[in-house]
Amino acid sequence: MRIKLTVAYDGTDFHGWQFQPEQRTVEGDLNKALSELLKEEIQVTGASRTDAGVHAYGNVAVFDTESNIPPDRFAYALNTKLKDDVRIMKSEEVAPDFHPRYQCHNKTYEYHVCCSEIQIPTRRRYSAYTYKKPDVEKMREGAKYFVGRHDFASFQAAGSTITDTVRSIFFIDVLQDNEGIVIRVNGDGFLYNMVRIMAGTLINVGCGKILPEDCKGILEACDRKKAGPTAPACGLFLKEIFYDEPERS
Amino acid sequence: MRIKLTVAYDGTDFHGWQFQPEQRTVEGDLNKALSELLKEEIQVTGASRTDAGVHAYGNVAVFDTESNIPPDRFAYALNTKLKDDVRIMKSEEVAPDFHPRYQCHNKTYEYHVCCSEIQIPTRRRYSAYTYKKPDVEKMREGAKYFVGRHDFASFQAAGSTITDTVRSIFFIDVLQDNEGIVIRVNGDGFLYNMVRIMAGTLINVGCGKILPEDCKGILEACDRKKAGPTAPACGLFLKEIFYDEPERS
Repeated sequence: MRIKLTVAYDGTDFHGWQFQPEQRTVEGDLNKALSELLKEEIQVTGASRTDAGVHAYGNVAVFDTESNIPPDRFAYALNTKLKDDVRIMKSEEVAPDFHPRYQCHNKTYEYHVCCSEIQIPTRRRYSAYTYKKPDVEKMREGAKYFVGRHDFASFQAAGSTITDTVRSIFFIDVLQDNEGIVIRVNGDGFLYNMVRIMAGTLINVGCGKILPEDCKGILEACDRKKAGPTAPACGLFLKEIFYDEPERS
Repeated sequence: MRIKLTVAYDGTDFHGWQFQPEQRTVEGDLNKALSELLKEEIQVTGASRTDAGVHAYGNVAVFDTESNIPPDRFAYALNTKLKDDVRIMKSEEVAPDFHPRYQCHNKTYEYHVCCSEIQIPTRRRYSAYTYKKPDVEKMREGAKYFVGRHDFASFQAAGSTITDTVRSIFFIDVLQDNEGIVIRVNGDGFLYNMVRIMAGTLINVGCGKILPEDCKGILEACDRKKAGPTAPACGLFLKEIFYDEPERS
């Protein structure tokens, strides 16, 4: 049977999701815990290869096993073998042809910004930091230009080999609370560093360095150099991955 | 001149506030940074000796110096010498007889609880965790009994040598958001572990293990064994210390 895991992690102490022989990675920790538990070599297939320092509430991984452990019990069994900065939030059986990356319909990311004259120590691991509070209304105005189906080449890390850079963004919400700002983005796919470059651009819009209406030109330029900086990894959370295929229950 | 520092820290990697020769403490780090900066031996006097693992947004410390660094610049100068889990949020000159502990009029603490079937990794450093969401209305009902001037002997860690256990609680708010519960308590003074025992008791009220109206009897018993458990240090934040004496500006 194929088991789907919903995986949350604090990315601070990981060299990202993707397995690397000499580094601690989320994929590496999952493979090790599963192989120990099932006494056979297991390699998970992940939905999203998050970068070093990026956090997740709901990344997804699958693996196949003949084990007779009830599907929903894998979460509990694995959590006893994993360090406390990674948790399996849910485990369930899915169709044998379910693929966590190809069947993904849309994903939600959150980018967190802490706004304080001096950085608050208990926020430093989980947010970017700005000295002044950005203007949220301006950020919302700028964000509107990104919603819809566009070529996001301006929002892809320089040097990426991906050539089809057209993606759909379904919504971007810019929320504020006492402690800062959250940019919530949902779309059908994201280029390398896309959310972090969007966040860096919108923060610059909020700080008055870019006009909201200039976001249109930045998008149309299809040139990474026109967009704002790549905001730090620690502010990024992969919130949830949605699948349009009905999953086997 | 006497300088007052407002100090924020992530308590995770500290053995508490109070100086200990062989351990990392907030007081120890401040003394070292100040002594380096001013090239003379400085020992700060702190307002609140928070325990290992407890966080702060606004603890207070003072020291005396003949330095001609402008008072508000100490924050910036010290932050370049401190690790990023402790920050001076503000520095200012106060009257030469200002004492951060004796002149303190009231303090606000927050206790954070993350409610999730499985603990969320990015919340684990800064909150306690409950499997089920406690009933916030019941917690509010129980908390009402603590407000006012009472003998809080039931809410003092066993073995404490303090005999005058009467304190005033001015308010307790039980707030909830998507991710959990925050208990915000303000009072004129707190016994050893008092907020954590109150939090442990109120969490048990919210989980149905203690009836809200039993909080009255727990208080009146003046017996530590009647109250709930001491909730973990990582959920506690010293939020702000208020002084009634006008400070020299």
